[in-house]
Amino acid sequence: MYQSFEVTARPEQGPPRLERLRAEIEAEALSGFLVPRADAHQGEYVAAHDERLAWLTGFTGSAGFCAALKDAAGVFIDGRYRTQVKAQVSDVFTPVPWPDVSLTDWLKKQLPQGGRVGFDPWLHAAGQIRTAVSELKGSGIELVRCDNLVDRIWPDQPSPPMEPVKVHPLEFAGETAADKAARLAEDLRSAGQKAAVITLPDSIMWLLNIRGADIPRNPVAHGFAILHDDGRVDLFMAAAKLTGLEEHLGPMVTQYEPDAFLDAVEALAGPVRVDLSTVPQIVADRLGHRLAKGGDPCALPKARKNAAEIAGAAEAHLRDGAAMVDLLAWLDAQEPGSLTETQVVSQLEACRRRDNALQDISFETIAGTGPNGAIMHYRVTEETDSRLEDGHLLVLDSGGQYLDGTTDITRTIAIGTVGDEEKTCFTRVLKGMIAMSMLRWPVGLAGRDIECVARLPLWLAGQDFNHGVGHGVGAYLSVHEGPQRLARVSHVPLEPGMILSNEPGYYREGAFGIRIENLVVVQEAAPLPGGDAERAMLNWRTLTYVPIDRRLIVAEMLTVEERDWLNAYHADVAAKIGPRLGAETRMWLDAATAPL
Amino acid sequence: MYQSFEVTARPEQGPPRLERLRAEIEAEALSGFLVPRADAHQGEYVAAHDERLAWLTGFTGSAGFCAALKDAAGVFIDGRYRTQVKAQVSDVFTPVPWPDVSLTDWLKKQLPQGGRVGFDPWLHAAGQIRTAVSELKGSGIELVRCDNLVDRIWPDQPSPPMEPVKVHPLEFAGETAADKAARLAEDLRSAGQKAAVITLPDSIMWLLNIRGADIPRNPVAHGFAILHDDGRVDLFMAAAKLTGLEEHLGPMVTQYEPDAFLDAVEALAGPVRVDLSTVPQIVADRLGHRLAKGGDPCALPKARKNAAEIAGAAEAHLRDGAAMVDLLAWLDAQEPGSLTETQVVSQLEACRRRDNALQDISFETIAGTGPNGAIMHYRVTEETDSRLEDGHLLVLDSGGQYLDGTTDITRTIAIGTVGDEEKTCFTRVLKGMIAMSMLRWPVGLAGRDIECVARLPLWLAGQDFNHGVGHGVGAYLSVHEGPQRLARVSHVPLEPGMILSNEPGYYREGAFGIRIENLVVVQEAAPLPGGDAERAMLNWRTLTYVPIDRRLIVAEMLTVEERDWLNAYHADVAAKIGPRLGAETRMWLDAATAPL
Repeated sequence: MYQSFEVTARPEQGPPRLERLRAEIEAEALSGFLVPRADAHQGEYVAAHDERLAWLTGFTGSAGFCAALKDAAGVFIDGRYRTQVKAQVSDVFTPVPWPDVSLTDWLKKQLPQGGRVGFDPWLHAAGQIRTAVSELKGSGIELVRCDNLVDRIWPDQPSPPMEPVKVHPLEFAGETAADKAARLAEDLRSAGQKAAVITLPDSIMWLLNIRGADIPRNPVAHGFAILHDDGRVDLFMAAAKLTGLEEHLGPMVTQYEPDAFLDAVEALAGPVRVDLSTVPQIVADRLGHRLAKGGDPCALPKARKNAAEIAGAAEAHLRDGAAMVDLLAWLDAQEPGSLTETQVVSQLEACRRRDNALQDISFETIAGTGPNGAIMHYRVTEETDSRLEDGHLLVLDSGGQYLDGTTDITRTIAIGTVGDEEKTCFTRVLKGMIAMSMLRWPVGLAGRDIECVARLPLWLAGQDFNHGVGHGVGAYLSVHEGPQRLARVSHVPLEPGMILSNEPGYYREGAFGIRIENLVVVQEAAPLPGGDAERAMLNWRTLTYVPIDRRLIVAEMLTVEERDWLNAYHADVAAKIGPRLGAETRMWLDAATAPL
Repeated sequence: MYQSFEVTARPEQGPPRLERLRAEIEAEALSGFLVPRADAHQGEYVAAHDERLAWLTGFTGSAGFCAALKDAAGVFIDGRYRTQVKAQVSDVFTPVPWPDVSLTDWLKKQLPQGGRVGFDPWLHAAGQIRTAVSELKGSGIELVRCDNLVDRIWPDQPSPPMEPVKVHPLEFAGETAADKAARLAEDLRSAGQKAAVITLPDSIMWLLNIRGADIPRNPVAHGFAILHDDGRVDLFMAAAKLTGLEEHLGPMVTQYEPDAFLDAVEALAGPVRVDLSTVPQIVADRLGHRLAKGGDPCALPKARKNAAEIAGAAEAHLRDGAAMVDLLAWLDAQEPGSLTETQVVSQLEACRRRDNALQDISFETIAGTGPNGAIMHYRVTEETDSRLEDGHLLVLDSGGQYLDGTTDITRTIAIGTVGDEEKTCFTRVLKGMIAMSMLRWPVGLAGRDIECVARLPLWLAGQDFNHGVGHGVGAYLSVHEGPQRLARVSHVPLEPGMILSNEPGYYREGAFGIRIENLVVVQEAAPLPGGDAERAMLNWRTLTYVPIDRRLIVAEMLTVEERDWLNAYHADVAAKIGPRLGAETRMWLDAATAPL
């Protein structure tokens, strides 16, 4: 269960497997076959059973797909993975920069005479297929539903996961499943919809107050659900996973085996609400004209955390913060050059596991020292493991899954004596992170409307970073949760209770990386004297309490307000985390949180 | 030609005219008729001939429409006009808060049995009708094309305007009409479109390097144009307006009378590009399936000002700035309580007209003192004219049309001794305005991505303002020009050459208003030492040079950088405007621009 640093896929596995796949393509009289990274639930993590893309190509990134044709095989990867893909796949595969080059444009170029490209209708969202079909109009290229051809040629494919599901106690959930279902059913009735099909595992977990263990890092179980407009829920999940849950699920929920799902969809009276961006094409096929757009009905209610979930998140962050402080104090006691990245990762996980509250880490820890810190989604392996040298910055991005909440924190740590340029850049990132923390804004704005606040100090110096400022975070669920985001692509208004990360960064390729991340929750801002009486505003409550490395701050670059914020934050860290520490670490913390 | 303060419409004119209109509605077997403020060119200003909404209802705002039914007559007005409409229309009309209540929702409520609502297909954009028709589906309400019923009952309706068109010299335009047409034709060819229909007067003026005088404040002539994919232009404009322009227009342009327009549209081979948001419904009707979406082909090229246009704008702003400084110096010499708003407006216009370069003011000057300053789109009339009293803030928003450029400037001026609260709020607005002025940002961002920068100081104090931060401005064209905007609704990337206003404000109802506005032009930002080498960034070049009232600034609230910016700005004002002033005014300016 500890994070592994194994290199799990090898380029040399690709060519023979691609050859076997091409035989199947030939046998089906197809021109090609699409192999997405996604499973039927479109999540960030997939079970070993669904690692088809890695098995076929060797590429292990968390997003991407392969279009295997007779004479070409494109591996489509986004900006994060342009370097990684080259090291992971053999040259029988061609990396395609996506979304700069779309699947359909690539297909048109590769198949000028047209052709029939197969796909598994469970693994592609209906919206995705709809777009592709419309883009392929007139090209002579057809997308054809077919069996999964990779599954046919994968002799030792692991079985689908079958882990037990547990009750998520009301103490942490804050609302009964029955109340949630009744609330959502009312939404369906007022929209004139008879039912909603729910295929996202975290939505099902949230709705039924259960948690699973089918995939790494996310406490979810695979399954499907149909919510009826009277509040009844049909749950399509293996009975073997649900042992002992009968009482919890109660009469509101009827369990079926997953293979009954499609027939049940087919039998529904319409209109039936689905989220086109995630529902499998095969579900849309069965619904036909009864399909109604409208998004996953759980998405927004789940994003708006209730008081119990916020209280749980706050407590989880204090527990997690104490583990982080233990790690930071330990790290500080080591000589520069004496540790490698994997040792830091393992030590941090040990700190988190110590009191047995940790259910899992919430994602693979990113520990990038020196130049590795500039690789935004760096995951250390035995091959890349690097030593923390004097003068390095260490970017340490990690989190935990606890019953009461999900954490995600990044700190950038000075190893030995760090240069002035690193400190100047760090202070700019910090100023942006503080500006976002101190912000208040009128009700109704989305991430896009305010995310630049965290970038301004960098912009004014001619700098920026190539990722969003923050993402939504679940309540003992996904560490990347939609729809709320602090990003330029996000037009969803921020609402009280939404938990997001605030994580500006700066990356200088081949040199160093910087990121500072706290989780924050949206709340109604208390009125200010002299403020507009009728103007409702929002602000953040901070959840994360872990010191920010004072050795990296150029104090003269901070305004009085920024310095006050930092000193007040550090005083809070000392007050909240100090009592949870041993005497020696507490002394370390007092020094680390001394006023600037 | 001087701005008038007459009250041009009276509530009592409405009831008998509505009665006559209802007789026409009855005679046509309709349930109602729509009377928009717009003309066939969808501009902000309309000719006297097209003032149907004001003639019928008495409402003189620059946006809105009336839906006249047999038993009800709704006047739909946006947030700016909620107070004004009550004073201007009789109670046979019902003000409807728009867009909170949409036309179609209102119609469904008023016509529960369905009905036939007439509209003039010249005066409604195709996109608008398309949306309304789709929203009315299933309601039994039909939108019916018909004659303009208001024109039938308006005995002394002024004739359509017939003012002479002038050449806009290459010296100011910076690119020949032939080059513009060739460039746009290439766009059409590469999109596979045979022609574009252009119905926006400022697009036609820009394309052909001409200017007109058909409507107030905007130097445009009414007409229509068809741009063919070989660069030929058919211009549908009365020959009487075009006397002496044959040589300038040359063989590339063929003139037709406006009544030939629809037949010419009908005769076009498709696809024909139109801007659905502005093209009259009747044009879309004639095009049928040949219609291709794609926006007005002139919109973006016109928005990206070339070097000659930018140089012209800079010079126009210095000339206009000298007039503003004359006004400010004069104003400062008057005793509090001795002047009224209309006197300020007339004096300002006199200052602008003095050197004969002014072609027209660019919009009706807003001069709001004390509580009137809190009315965002205040236009002073004989009835509202107020005295500038000791302690007032005067919001003065005005601009000029010059051959070399269009200006738009707001300054807020202290009258006598002003309270601390006003100064604190003023300083926050100034901080926002300076922050936007100093900004640099990565290429590719739109107004929405950066406009909050000008609001942050207000937000942090629990305050905000209910308008965008800025709008696009034309080159001796419309003072409100799209598509570029510094507003939450604007997703158009900012590009070098675009001129925008930077005008944050603050408004306390019944008390005071504040707005500070400079025009700025987007430019490529020079690289900074230490900045990201590969990251292209943009920033602003300031066009407006007029002092900002130092008496209203709380110096301690400014950061060092903000104070430096202000002092450097004021030094530039003194250096650039000083030489254009008489000795006495120059002394006033030196004091007004002294370092803070």
